[in-house]
Amino acid sequence: MFKINYCNQCGGKTAFRIAEGEDRKRDVCHDCGFIQYLNPRIIVGTLPTYQGKVLLCRRAIEPRKGYWTLPAGFMECGETAADGARRETMEEAGAQLTDLHLYALYDVPMIDQFYMFYRAEMLSGDFSAGVESLEVELFALTDIPWGEMAFPTITKVLRQYIDDLPSGHFNLVEARIG
Amino acid sequence: MFKINYCNQCGGKTAFRIAEGEDRKRDVCHDCGFIQYLNPRIIVGTLPTYQGKVLLCRRAIEPRKGYWTLPAGFMECGETAADGARRETMEEAGAQLTDLHLYALYDVPMIDQFYMFYRAEMLSGDFSAGVESLEVELFALTDIPWGEMAFPTITKVLRQYIDDLPSGHFNLVEARIG
Ligand SMILES: [Zn+2]
Ligand SMILES: [Zn+2]
Repeated sequence: MFKINYCNQCGGKTAFRIAEGEDRKRDVCHDCGFIQYLNPRIIVGTLPTYQGKVLLCRRAIEPRKGYWTLPAGFMECGETAADGARRETMEEAGAQLTDLHLYALYDVPMIDQFYMFYRAEMLSGDFSAGVESLEVELFALTDIPWGEMAFPTITKVLRQYIDDLPSGHFNLVEARIG
Repeated sequence: MFKINYCNQCGGKTAFRIAEGEDRKRDVCHDCGFIQYLNPRIIVGTLPTYQGKVLLCRRAIEPRKGYWTLPAGFMECGETAADGARRETMEEAGAQLTDLHLYALYDVPMIDQFYMFYRAEMLSGDFSAGVESLEVELFALTDIPWGEMAFPTITKVLRQYIDDLPSGHFNLVEARIG
């Protein structure tokens, strides 16, 4: 995730070691003994659709600036996962959604991330690029720019959606990536 | 979650404020500008069953020491959610599980937690209390100590299981608690 050098409680130096009563190495403060736990983070996103098209955002920020993605971002404290997914969709794509349906859960343990994607129909054809997007566009499923996708999780959930569409059954998918 | 006083990168003092380019207050370092994000944490747990009984652990640690719970704990970096649920079950209850089936997702935004419970049959009738458990016991569903449950999430997933059992259909449940 990222390297910790100092205790966020007392400002003392930390060491990455096994503290008493723990079974694995953690960042432990030399001075006050505080253990700073790092845990996987949840990324909440949506697959917004409108009249058979899917809404993609072209990233204005690194990593993968200029590549296409679905609206998604880190879940924030104080919100539910679905609330977070809705918020990200508004922030990045300026789009309002109807009911959200949980659709894909992806473990990405290599980078300590856990993805939750919701399917949702857009409330209208309105959308607009937020500050983290260069542009936002509705794509027909035959026009998705597969060669310019930002992340493997995005490609995976879009392919799953295209596979499921003919049957109309969108069962929850659980998968590990990487 | 918890209060941050110092930057874990440079050891400088932090302030809880809106940094440039951010839309909400975060812990920001006065000296180096590092933003320390706090995000909700995932708690992974299981509902282990064996010959129609359910395995509960009596907590040896605070909070809710002495009360009954299901095996559950914070998901760790580098593992999948299902791996974490299996690990917690081994650590707290000394029990091995067959296939895990995702069963309940609970948002608890008041305490910045996201719960994931899996159903799983135990591989055998073997179990033993880990260091975080005073005792571990298989309970008939008619004998569950409802008045001594540790957390609302535990009560909720057990009641859901009892509701679903007659039909044999254990559809994934999504709920917000608190
Ligand atoms: Zn300290
Ligand atoms: Zn700093």
